[in-house]
Amino acid sequence: MEKHILVALPLSEEQRQTLRQAAPQFAYRFTTEETATLEEILWADAILGNVPVEYIRQNRHLSWFQSNFAGPDPYLEPGVLPDDCLVTNATGAYGLAISEWMLGMWLALAKDLVLYRDRQHRHQWDAIQRPVRSIAGSRVLCVGMGDIGASFARRAHLLGAEVVGVRRHPSSCPDYCLRVVDTAHLDEELPQADLVALSLPGTPETYRLFDDARLARCKRGAILLNVGRGNTVDCDALARAVQSGALYGAAVDVTDPEPLPAEHPLWSLDTVLITPHISGRFSLPRTLQNIVEIFAHNLRRYAAGETLDNQMSRTTRYVSEETPGRRLTCE
Amino acid sequence: MEKHILVALPLSEEQRQTLRQAAPQFAYRFTTEETATLEEILWADAILGNVPVEYIRQNRHLSWFQSNFAGPDPYLEPGVLPDDCLVTNATGAYGLAISEWMLGMWLALAKDLVLYRDRQHRHQWDAIQRPVRSIAGSRVLCVGMGDIGASFARRAHLLGAEVVGVRRHPSSCPDYCLRVVDTAHLDEELPQADLVALSLPGTPETYRLFDDARLARCKRGAILLNVGRGNTVDCDALARAVQSGALYGAAVDVTDPEPLPAEHPLWSLDTVLITPHISGRFSLPRTLQNIVEIFAHNLRRYAAGETLDNQMSRTTRYVSEETPGRRLTCE
Repeated sequence: MEKHILVALPLSEEQRQTLRQAAPQFAYRFTTEETATLEEILWADAILGNVPVEYIRQNRHLSWFQSNFAGPDPYLEPGVLPDDCLVTNATGAYGLAISEWMLGMWLALAKDLVLYRDRQHRHQWDAIQRPVRSIAGSRVLCVGMGDIGASFARRAHLLGAEVVGVRRHPSSCPDYCLRVVDTAHLDEELPQADLVALSLPGTPETYRLFDDARLARCKRGAILLNVGRGNTVDCDALARAVQSGALYGAAVDVTDPEPLPAEHPLWSLDTVLITPHISGRFSLPRTLQNIVEIFAHNLRRYAAGETLDNQMSRTTRYVSEETPGRRLTCE
Repeated sequence: MEKHILVALPLSEEQRQTLRQAAPQFAYRFTTEETATLEEILWADAILGNVPVEYIRQNRHLSWFQSNFAGPDPYLEPGVLPDDCLVTNATGAYGLAISEWMLGMWLALAKDLVLYRDRQHRHQWDAIQRPVRSIAGSRVLCVGMGDIGASFARRAHLLGAEVVGVRRHPSSCPDYCLRVVDTAHLDEELPQADLVALSLPGTPETYRLFDDARLARCKRGAILLNVGRGNTVDCDALARAVQSGALYGAAVDVTDPEPLPAEHPLWSLDTVLITPHISGRFSLPRTLQNIVEIFAHNLRRYAAGETLDNQMSRTTRYVSEETPGRRLTCE
């Protein structure tokens, strides 16, 4: 049966061909997130790409929504998609881009590079007289072990760090981790960690998981990274923890709210580094190619009537053992 | 025979014990670079640590000078040390500290982190609309494959880069390199490299090796790192190459001259990052411990009348196959 496939992504002609060839019997229209029209969206049986929520909620015959995000939160709200519409995400696409961002931010803080950048503006050749930190030999706590957390954990291990993972349902322990523990053991692991790396989805369980009390459990002088959802950390509490010296510093690509208000104290802290939710997106060209490959993979399965991979639970907001299909990875 | 050993390093009591135990039959005095007196220096048969050149040149019975630098240039000038005085350096101690610095600087530029740091000062939540780069899939050219270059090459390889090494006398190719070529082939390799990482000693052959002509051989949009000696790069030419867009940017821990004059154009370039010769030193506590271990190792050999390791040629300024002893590494 011919299906109508709407693809809302800034693709090259070669990338469009990859998708068409995945299921040549289907009809395709190509648009972008910004230019997608209501008419295009109502035409579609399946949509690949994050078109406007206010349009997509008017399509009541949609059978599959493939997001280009790992966490397509607004589409998971009740009533946005038809109840029987399958939802798949782009987990697997972002591991490389975001884990390298995490490494960069960690080193930028650990080696005082952000402070030297500030001094550079004063044309000041002047060493900071205090020890720096190294990746090798550090204890890293990866809170969230999806594609992003696991990619980072693997890299940190390769560079000589000791890595402990935290996840909702720990199954096997990958060879790059010392151990993977249940979220219930988070508070036991925090006091040992030199680096706490958060890559959690936004769910009721993760909302402000890092509040004053939990930040106080961290090792004195630890560094915190957040690339998951901004609201997993209480940003006021984070600013207080850095100001008091309880934490050495933090690098956040996500905040609560976003944009971070201009008057928020985090902006002015020396050892805090803020990027405007850019670690993922398509800022790295290979991320878009990864997304195309995930889409093509699932298109072939959709055409063959097979179970789609990367299926998300709309309640837990995870791709996991409990949801149909496998979790993909592009590394 | 009892020898007089002067140790000029800021050591803990435990680290002093490590040295004393390496050769208990010798007499030890402990001082620092800054506080060493002429009397102490004249007393010594062997000196471990970079005491003032103007004092050390007055000791004509010195039999061994163990530097805590990888490149102890001033001590190698004719007439500073007696002709038969052995010179050993601290190669092996700095690989971890400096290669992590190199990774951090690379990522800070490749992921636009320095530009986001600048925007942070304006409390500006505003994405830069252009692609970033990744380590994975990049071609890296490591010019200089001593301890520092090799440590960095290994890390870049582990993170998914393709690494080519350049050295004076390529012998075997380590498994983390695609190939290691002779310096004569540098110009053939430059146009392929996304990252050019310099860790060369200061010698007549490396003086301004990267001048206008050689920088023009680099791939358009490449990034250059320099952690060796500042005068291996013509800093004016480097500024021109970045200003013109021929290079994307550069991160330098060493410049020519040092300190870099306040009016030098490199200070003001957005995609240039400058640190004041701090990537090595003892900024990372483990570096000092590595130096203690190298000293202790050679002290045991000195006491036993064995060939010292890390012996430097005073003419080539390298520890190599041509000099007696092995090259040490602390990783």
